[in-house]
Amino acid sequence: MSKLLESYAAGRWHRADDEGEPLLDAVTGQEVARLSARGLDLGAMAAYARTVGGPAVRELTFHERAGLLKELALHLTAGKEELYALSLHTGATPRDSALDIDGGCGTLFSYASKGRRELPNDTIVLDGPTEPLGVGGTFVGRHVYASRPGVAVQINAFNFPVWGMLEKLGPAFLAGLPTIVKPAGQTAYLAEALVRRIIESGILPEGSLQLLCGRPQGLLDVLTVQDSVAFTGSAHTAGLLRGHPQILHAGVTLNVEADSLNCSILGPDITAADPEFDLYVEAVITEMTVKAGQKCTAIRRIIVPSDLADAVIEALIERLCGITIGNPANEDVRMGSLVSLAQREEVRKAVESLRASADIVYGDPHSVTVVDADPERGAFISPLLLRAARGAAEPHDVEPFGPVATVLAYDSVEEAIDLAARGMGSLVGSLITHDPEIARRIVLGLAPWHGRILVLDRDDAKESTGHGLPLPMLVHGGPGRAGGGEELGGIRAVLRHMQRTAIQSSPDAMTTITDCWTTGAHRRTEALHPFRKSLTDLAIGNTITSPPRTITLDDITHFAEFTGDTFYAHTDPEAAAANPLFGGIVAHGYLVVSLAAGLFVDPDPGPVLANYGVDNLRFLTPVKPGDSIAVTLTVKQITPRANTDYGEVRWDAVVTNATGTPVATYDVLTLVAKTWPRT
Amino acid sequence: MSKLLESYAAGRWHRADDEGEPLLDAVTGQEVARLSARGLDLGAMAAYARTVGGPAVRELTFHERAGLLKELALHLTAGKEELYALSLHTGATPRDSALDIDGGCGTLFSYASKGRRELPNDTIVLDGPTEPLGVGGTFVGRHVYASRPGVAVQINAFNFPVWGMLEKLGPAFLAGLPTIVKPAGQTAYLAEALVRRIIESGILPEGSLQLLCGRPQGLLDVLTVQDSVAFTGSAHTAGLLRGHPQILHAGVTLNVEADSLNCSILGPDITAADPEFDLYVEAVITEMTVKAGQKCTAIRRIIVPSDLADAVIEALIERLCGITIGNPANEDVRMGSLVSLAQREEVRKAVESLRASADIVYGDPHSVTVVDADPERGAFISPLLLRAARGAAEPHDVEPFGPVATVLAYDSVEEAIDLAARGMGSLVGSLITHDPEIARRIVLGLAPWHGRILVLDRDDAKESTGHGLPLPMLVHGGPGRAGGGEELGGIRAVLRHMQRTAIQSSPDAMTTITDCWTTGAHRRTEALHPFRKSLTDLAIGNTITSPPRTITLDDITHFAEFTGDTFYAHTDPEAAAANPLFGGIVAHGYLVVSLAAGLFVDPDPGPVLANYGVDNLRFLTPVKPGDSIAVTLTVKQITPRANTDYGEVRWDAVVTNATGTPVATYDVLTLVAKTWPRT
Repeated sequence: MSKLLESYAAGRWHRADDEGEPLLDAVTGQEVARLSARGLDLGAMAAYARTVGGPAVRELTFHERAGLLKELALHLTAGKEELYALSLHTGATPRDSALDIDGGCGTLFSYASKGRRELPNDTIVLDGPTEPLGVGGTFVGRHVYASRPGVAVQINAFNFPVWGMLEKLGPAFLAGLPTIVKPAGQTAYLAEALVRRIIESGILPEGSLQLLCGRPQGLLDVLTVQDSVAFTGSAHTAGLLRGHPQILHAGVTLNVEADSLNCSILGPDITAADPEFDLYVEAVITEMTVKAGQKCTAIRRIIVPSDLADAVIEALIERLCGITIGNPANEDVRMGSLVSLAQREEVRKAVESLRASADIVYGDPHSVTVVDADPERGAFISPLLLRAARGAAEPHDVEPFGPVATVLAYDSVEEAIDLAARGMGSLVGSLITHDPEIARRIVLGLAPWHGRILVLDRDDAKESTGHGLPLPMLVHGGPGRAGGGEELGGIRAVLRHMQRTAIQSSPDAMTTITDCWTTGAHRRTEALHPFRKSLTDLAIGNTITSPPRTITLDDITHFAEFTGDTFYAHTDPEAAAANPLFGGIVAHGYLVVSLAAGLFVDPDPGPVLANYGVDNLRFLTPVKPGDSIAVTLTVKQITPRANTDYGEVRWDAVVTNATGTPVATYDVLTLVAKTWPRT
Repeated sequence: MSKLLESYAAGRWHRADDEGEPLLDAVTGQEVARLSARGLDLGAMAAYARTVGGPAVRELTFHERAGLLKELALHLTAGKEELYALSLHTGATPRDSALDIDGGCGTLFSYASKGRRELPNDTIVLDGPTEPLGVGGTFVGRHVYASRPGVAVQINAFNFPVWGMLEKLGPAFLAGLPTIVKPAGQTAYLAEALVRRIIESGILPEGSLQLLCGRPQGLLDVLTVQDSVAFTGSAHTAGLLRGHPQILHAGVTLNVEADSLNCSILGPDITAADPEFDLYVEAVITEMTVKAGQKCTAIRRIIVPSDLADAVIEALIERLCGITIGNPANEDVRMGSLVSLAQREEVRKAVESLRASADIVYGDPHSVTVVDADPERGAFISPLLLRAARGAAEPHDVEPFGPVATVLAYDSVEEAIDLAARGMGSLVGSLITHDPEIARRIVLGLAPWHGRILVLDRDDAKESTGHGLPLPMLVHGGPGRAGGGEELGGIRAVLRHMQRTAIQSSPDAMTTITDCWTTGAHRRTEALHPFRKSLTDLAIGNTITSPPRTITLDDITHFAEFTGDTFYAHTDPEAAAANPLFGGIVAHGYLVVSLAAGLFVDPDPGPVLANYGVDNLRFLTPVKPGDSIAVTLTVKQITPRANTDYGEVRWDAVVTNATGTPVATYDVLTLVAKTWPRT
């Protein structure tokens, strides 16, 4: 008997007390492993996640969590050969496995990087600016994202056991959540090997990752309001999950990413002689054959101008004839097998349904030539290209989860958009066009129906990652049939795991709650200039208020000459008087902020290393010759950076005139040494 | 027989073909109106919204839609007396009605203002920055929000018939969606009057608002993937809606805002002598009595330090004794009636359940003294204050939707947070404390369980809008029992109605699709300086590339002296050499951008009126004495403003050194006249 896969539950590896059900090699039909979760205490797993894993993750800042993800990505990359070897059993070619294994590690790297660069070194995230809620400035509002004290349950699909797990785990971990992962049965041996490697590394805090290998009966029953379920799989199963009592009535949140009937449109501007024609054919062939078409993002509907339909079909057939199918361990093989014989039966059934309104123009669902394998014992199937009759319904409704796609013809841009929309919501659509105006028109027509749209042409083809590939920085998900959820999208995926809460308070309380100085809060002016304080010594609210400086006409004239900025509003009294906003000579905005810097800077060497930028600079009131200005600079946010001896300080800057009216407001961004003198 | 309310469906007022069911005056028990939707074709309404209303709204830009909302708000404000008169029938006092009617108009004003200020004058919204997807810069990604070609169905609660309708209608309309509004039966006469006034004004495009007066059976059946339902009401009904087949399987989206067991916590730092003690008592009394406690945000759980429980109860009782109850038309009346006798029975039943673990310390559910009314024919009930036993379960689970609240005692901050969390998710929690550190600790503990948290103290009390009041700029909603949805929150509510889509393309296609110049796209350099072009003549991509200018040590020294910015990195060679980032004298960042302005500006009077700001300025590479810089300025976005003769132009600015390396990047914001010479 082959190995019985184990679950990792409540701090230990759990072996079921029965023999489990066999998992078969997709290529040879031989048993690879056995699967059972019998005896697993799911309630204890959820409780362990909430009481052990969650608190351990939430003790870390986003930057610390990001650091662990990077460490994990490096560790998994170093050991990926083991995963590649196991992946062959799933019917995947090495190219397919790269999408899964390297793609998964790449996603972790991306989240590690974004977590460090785009999230604060804190445990909450601020959302949007402070909203004044009263004219007196004593009552303000702000939104924050906070971590939920629950568990993230992740139910993955069979087709990408590594990527599918890591693309959910990464954002959930960054968001402060412990994960219970439930891999799909068919490829659970690969998921188990992955989790084993993660657990053995000790990189993630104990309790932050648990594994449920086997049937998940009762899993949703143990979840409650702060818990969430992320599901990837069929629209049918998604519907069942939505109807679970804990989802309907107990506040468990559900995010669905479901297989959809994605389309690719060949633009009406393209002829068979254009390079875009070949790009289109190549894209369709790739999507049909990678992972033997078992991708939720694969192109199922090939939407082409009616006068090019024959040419497209001819080109596709020519390419399909050259695809070598068989044992993925053989180097010549371009397309491996489906994941299981049962899956092949599903695909054959779907193709039979499609034939109600479409003809097969390439391939035979019941016959295929393979190399190094037995076409009957292995789950092999030929690529199948169909051509639909006008008005066909089935291609928009029946999903063959295999190397199958249907050609549909259109006569106008409106019809192309309408055909795409008939899929009732997709993860991704693509458009091959070299006309930006056509791109705008079709993309905006497709947008409400798609989570992602690829526009491909000769300009971006070389760098394009292709129709089928979700990227960590772009949302992955889609409306309707695609499940209505969103994954990835960079930090969006992290925030989706958190609770957004509106806070209303005084500026002082808001400053303390958010660790961000809020206009109206007390300022702390001390004898020591804040530029003399190291990052460690600085406190939110530390302030310098400058003496005033008068800006003379000579200053303005001189600045104009020196910089070359002789815009008439600074140099020509008559013309400036006619300017409807100024009504006379005004100081340059750049002069105002330059003089303000002169007013607040402390010149001597100290912990402040550099001004690396300015945000949200607004010139609010014109400064006229003879006006005096003063500046108040207040520490707004302090962000220590890991692995360096300095961090970032964001300062609130307000320049006022003699009447106290703000003339310019902005944030000054500086790098400040953690200690001073430097050690 | 009283008036049979009509529905507004598919362009005409529809009168049911039966007599309808009677709606009774909450105060007198007399019939106010009758209600029936019999004969209404709901499928035709949805189709009309999709084919007539939706396209008409989506033809307008966000600014144009915002303009119509403002017009509508003004129109409704002018006619509000009629609504106030009808509101008396619901049992509401004029103060209650102000929350509903003025609150509703205020929300429209707020969305009109935010739509104009925070959305582009376009039909799509860009989300986040452009993401580079390849090292060569030929393949980029960006997220956009697009309008859905569906209908927004809004199912409102009885308690705020005006505000509840307008706070949903405003954001949906801004998002480009037509609305079908389904008001609660009990107060439908007020909703009907409101819709009648809106329709008669002709301000909104035909088809963008329809009204369903009566039972909504079958309404969800006619919805499909691009349609959405926004529901406000009980958690029980919300659960039923979630289980509807069109929600489970057909991609109809549902947003729920449900009544919850909101709490208010008196901080452990407060004594009976503090002003916060009185603020707390006042807040609780307000929430118990406004709308006779029929608010989804009302305080149901009064969480106080155990040693102050007696004092709080005593103070509350004293205040409750002074509340005059009765006919809301009487000026002395502070609290009106519940909405109906049936509602009173519900409240009495809930109080009976609460008594399993709590004692009534004020009021009698079956007896109340009223002025100018019959306490039995009108739906009057006394305010009821309860005190829970330690460990009581019912106060966290049973919701009396009336003037009822329960006192619970705590001994530690952890216990206070735990008690709050036992509500399993709330719309709002409040905290009365004057200690910012306690505020941070409790707020961050409450945050995952609440959509909104108010921190009240002596500092913000004067301007505070109170525990119960949702504000248009802050999210309204909450996890778990509160429904898991979000409404309001400013522009967040608009985006929630739209589909977010990731677009991948070449920079050129992205520029055309998004109407925003994208790094890597072609620039259009023409003989005419772009500062000579009016807003109408300018095009995205218009560019000026400046000649180079060398920055000398003299320039830096002079700038330091002139501005007073004598920071050592600009003035002291030895100290600057020790700076780890610079390693020698560098030019001021402000000098670089000032000289860049001198390089790109066109000095003569022209359509460019002013530089009103700078965004995202980053200094990327130090500029050393002898380096030369050049600047490229490209039109990135053009935003015409309604009702003025100018608009905004955002320019992409890149300053490079002699090797072509960017030394500074930023956006320059200018105001540009629509025509030139000005007409």
